[in-house]
Amino acid sequence: AGPALTLATDDGLFEFKLRGRLYADAGWAHDNDDAMNVAGTELRAARIGIEGKAWGKIGYRFEADFAGNTTTVNDAFITYPTSFGKVTVGNFKTPNSLEEQTSSRFVTFIERGAFTDAFNLARQLGVSLSNGGDNWTFKAAVFRGSVSDTADEQGTTLAGRVTYGGKFDNGAWMLGGSVRYQEASEGAQYRYRQRTYHHLSDRLLATGFITDEDFMYGLEAAAQMGAFHASAEWASLSAKDGGSAARNATFSGGYVEAGWFITGESRPLKLSSGVWDRAAVNSPIHKGGVGAWEVAAKYDIIDLTDNGVFGGEMDTIVIGLNWYLNRHARVMANYSHSTIDDAFDVAANGADGENSADTFGLRFQIDW
Amino acid sequence: AGPALTLATDDGLFEFKLRGRLYADAGWAHDNDDAMNVAGTELRAARIGIEGKAWGKIGYRFEADFAGNTTTVNDAFITYPTSFGKVTVGNFKTPNSLEEQTSSRFVTFIERGAFTDAFNLARQLGVSLSNGGDNWTFKAAVFRGSVSDTADEQGTTLAGRVTYGGKFDNGAWMLGGSVRYQEASEGAQYRYRQRTYHHLSDRLLATGFITDEDFMYGLEAAAQMGAFHASAEWASLSAKDGGSAARNATFSGGYVEAGWFITGESRPLKLSSGVWDRAAVNSPIHKGGVGAWEVAAKYDIIDLTDNGVFGGEMDTIVIGLNWYLNRHARVMANYSHSTIDDAFDVAANGADGENSADTFGLRFQIDW
Amino acid sequence: AGPALTLATDDGLFEFKLRGRLYADAGWAHDNDDAMNVAGTELRAARIGIEGKAWGKIGYRFEADFAGNTTTVNDAFITYPTSFGKVTVGNFKTPNSLEEQTSSRFVTFIERGAFTDAFNLARQLGVSLSNGGDNWTFKAAVFRGSVSDTADEQGTTLAGRVTYGGKFDNGAWMLGGSVRYQEASEGAQYRYRQRTYHHLSDRLLATGFITDEDFMYGLEAAAQMGAFHASAEWASLSAKDGGSAARNATFSGGYVEAGWFITGESRPLKLSSGVWDRAAVNSPIHKGGVGAWEVAAKYDIIDLTDNGVFGGEMDTIVIGLNWYLNRHARVMANYSHSTIDDAFDVAANGADGENSADTFGLRFQIDW
Repeated sequence: AGPALTLATDDGLFEFKLRGRLYADAGWAHDNDDAMNVAGTELRAARIGIEGKAWGKIGYRFEADFAGNTTTVNDAFITYPTSFGKVTVGNFKTPNSLEEQTSSRFVTFIERGAFTDAFNLARQLGVSLSNGGDNWTFKAAVFRGSVSDTADEQGTTLAGRVTYGGKFDNGAWMLGGSVRYQEASEGAQYRYRQRTYHHLSDRLLATGFITDEDFMYGLEAAAQMGAFHASAEWASLSAKDGGSAARNATFSGGYVEAGWFITGESRPLKLSSGVWDRAAVNSPIHKGGVGAWEVAAKYDIIDLTDNGVFGGEMDTIVIGLNWYLNRHARVMANYSHSTIDDAFDVAANGADGENSADTFGLRFQIDW
Repeated sequence: AGPALTLATDDGLFEFKLRGRLYADAGWAHDNDDAMNVAGTELRAARIGIEGKAWGKIGYRFEADFAGNTTTVNDAFITYPTSFGKVTVGNFKTPNSLEEQTSSRFVTFIERGAFTDAFNLARQLGVSLSNGGDNWTFKAAVFRGSVSDTADEQGTTLAGRVTYGGKFDNGAWMLGGSVRYQEASEGAQYRYRQRTYHHLSDRLLATGFITDEDFMYGLEAAAQMGAFHASAEWASLSAKDGGSAARNATFSGGYVEAGWFITGESRPLKLSSGVWDRAAVNSPIHKGGVGAWEVAAKYDIIDLTDNGVFGGEMDTIVIGLNWYLNRHARVMANYSHSTIDDAFDVAANGADGENSADTFGLRFQIDW
Repeated sequence: AGPALTLATDDGLFEFKLRGRLYADAGWAHDNDDAMNVAGTELRAARIGIEGKAWGKIGYRFEADFAGNTTTVNDAFITYPTSFGKVTVGNFKTPNSLEEQTSSRFVTFIERGAFTDAFNLARQLGVSLSNGGDNWTFKAAVFRGSVSDTADEQGTTLAGRVTYGGKFDNGAWMLGGSVRYQEASEGAQYRYRQRTYHHLSDRLLATGFITDEDFMYGLEAAAQMGAFHASAEWASLSAKDGGSAARNATFSGGYVEAGWFITGESRPLKLSSGVWDRAAVNSPIHKGGVGAWEVAAKYDIIDLTDNGVFGGEMDTIVIGLNWYLNRHARVMANYSHSTIDDAFDVAANGADGENSADTFGLRFQIDW
């Protein structure tokens, strides 16, 4: 049971669920070169959505985000089971990265790993085939760009991901890997950029538009043992002819994170979907409890400097404290410190291409 | 019963229904003059809406479309029954054309007839009075332009439609007619344009902005006999002083289409509303069936060339195959071939004003 | 009971309600200097929203408006009760003015008092603490600008409001007061403008961007006696260094209004929330009744001329007739006459800075 409106018919032919979420954020960011002095607030997510089953086998989900008074279609797809697996048609995430696949409602920190932004992981319009069992998943997909692209602006993206895991006493583990190949539309090019560790902060790392074709692979590992959880990812991207002398520039990034529920809860690994799931709360505040409290730390690196491209290298330490009032509401506090090197392509870092930055973020989150 | 969330109170005073639809499209288009080479995808519709009854007699409907990351208000109206008929206030379609009045969820092909676009049939903000019986409908309305127009940009539109039909053994027929008169706001003018037979293709037919006043009439005929259905429409539009020497330019368009459900279903004519309705599916896939399969063909013409205006003339043949997985989900495939003449006003058609084009479209559709 | 979909679990942990409203407006406006000749229509509000309770103590509301084919986030907040009162985080109205706090669904005229627009009362992103009892309310809040502002564009707003009232035989009274202090972001400035008494009309009163800091206070009084209700507000705003010789310019505005339900209903004062509430309808049309009929008049003044700033002074008389078909649907008709003086900063008023204007407005309103 949850706060969402969920209705189903007795014969199982129909299900209907209203979705939604609100994230009210505040953020502060400052860098050592004094180019960035941010203190602001943001409605980071303001979504309404519907998901359901129409006549048994056909599923759908549609969710739109209205944050910032703009409209963004998020998940918008139809699913149909075949004997080869589930076919999904519409707008959805390319199957890459454990943290990207995990809903932002359930990730440990306010921001995901730097590489997930820098390498442009996002929803695109496409078709996928997915399959899986109790402890493994497989998904392969082909996409044609964002829902806001015109036909002329659409490139081609191929992507796939596999995960495999197991359970043990009071815990679970999972390993995974994914690939993505992208080719831009005629005349278009890709660039790679990243903010310091808050969405309101500036992009102190950035390459120019350097390539019309890239290939990325990523590796994932995750484990949960009682109240403790840890995960790590690594990804490498080759931008074709993106470096000097028309040779590939190869960028990479990854993170290691660990979290611990002081109050004893667990962060569940959902092996059948290949993602982290919603944590239970032992003693929610409506029962007079203290909610769930979690401390977490993350070490994150992203390197956009290679072969004559000086997008920059950033090492970040993030410390987080999460308070789950109940299963659907939480307050998050994050502090981060980043060290930046070889970021000559961004003027804000000065002539030495070096910088450092600190951010502090707060989030008030609810979903239904 | 259907997949939509529908709630009603026992006293009948309240009804509440959540609406929505997703169309995930792919399209290819190419012309003989090699000016158009389209291969793309599109979320053509991504809608959420609500309709209901508030305290018995007052009805409302509100639906918005977020496709392409833009916001478009679709139906947004309040209805109230009077002794003269039902009054509707708000944003809704001008009452013209059987195919335009029929929901896009229930039309036979991915695109409607060319004249419905070329003659700018659309929703406007206005007031209507409608009446009807089991086999007839009447609607008259006055409008003031689109919901996105400012007061300065609003013209005036008058429109009306009547339909009359009958039932026979395992079938039904309907005849109808409609008119529309439009006057643009001060300083504004109308133009008339049309794509080849897919929304992602280019407009190879187009006039300039040639008039600030036009009058259109349309005639309709439709019939259903068992698994077979057919319909035809014809419309003529006079653009005042739109031709050379400040004389009217008169454009026209229409179509004949026929479809046949291989699997034996019927496409129902809803005589009390003057539209085509949702088809039943005898053997939906969740019961292990093959769904409903329909083949259809359409011959469509549009002529925007008259009296010194060379918008162009286009004859199109469309062939379609529809697979209805159940009552609310279908997959559509359309192939079209168009022949274009006298389209000197569009540079893409070259010096001879002639061209031809082929399109192929796929749609994955669900509604709830 | 009402037309909204409301669901709650037996244990009281969850509530879920779908909200929404449609306002279809028509308006006419003309001024004596013949600078404004408006005749137009508008979908003034087209909203869908959700509100609920997640696990007992945590509440939320999210509503977005799609009128004019644009997206505007309205209420979007999370609430949490503490021992000091209710904490609200997100996007909501600054706590100022009885008429601004009262939902537009329940105000007496199509437009609110001129000062509520002229002094830029609006929703902002912030945090508030509120408390209250059966007959009093208190709310204090700090904000950081609109949800569409970037972090750079966000100023700081502090605001607070108190109300106190009482009940007597077949009636109630309430007094209130509020303050607001605003400081614009670096380089930004405030201006003060007002239309004549219809949203489609022009702004015949306007100052330039004259200050980056202002302070406003407001006083409120309201009473209901049987079928009669009356209210009055006064507000004064000091724009720091906004006048000539870098001295404050002080603007003011207010209104007195009275309404009477011919059919005997009452407009309820909700003392525990400090706002006007939804009126009951004794004899709604679905019971064969005539609905509720209300006549009302308002005298409204706004003065944006002071100390070398000639934004203008406007006195307006508004007469209104409201027909409530049932509790959730009404038709409103308003006529207004405004006299404008000392409005030299707006060219439309001519060299004498004087003008007068008449407006007529119609609204068809439903909410669910």
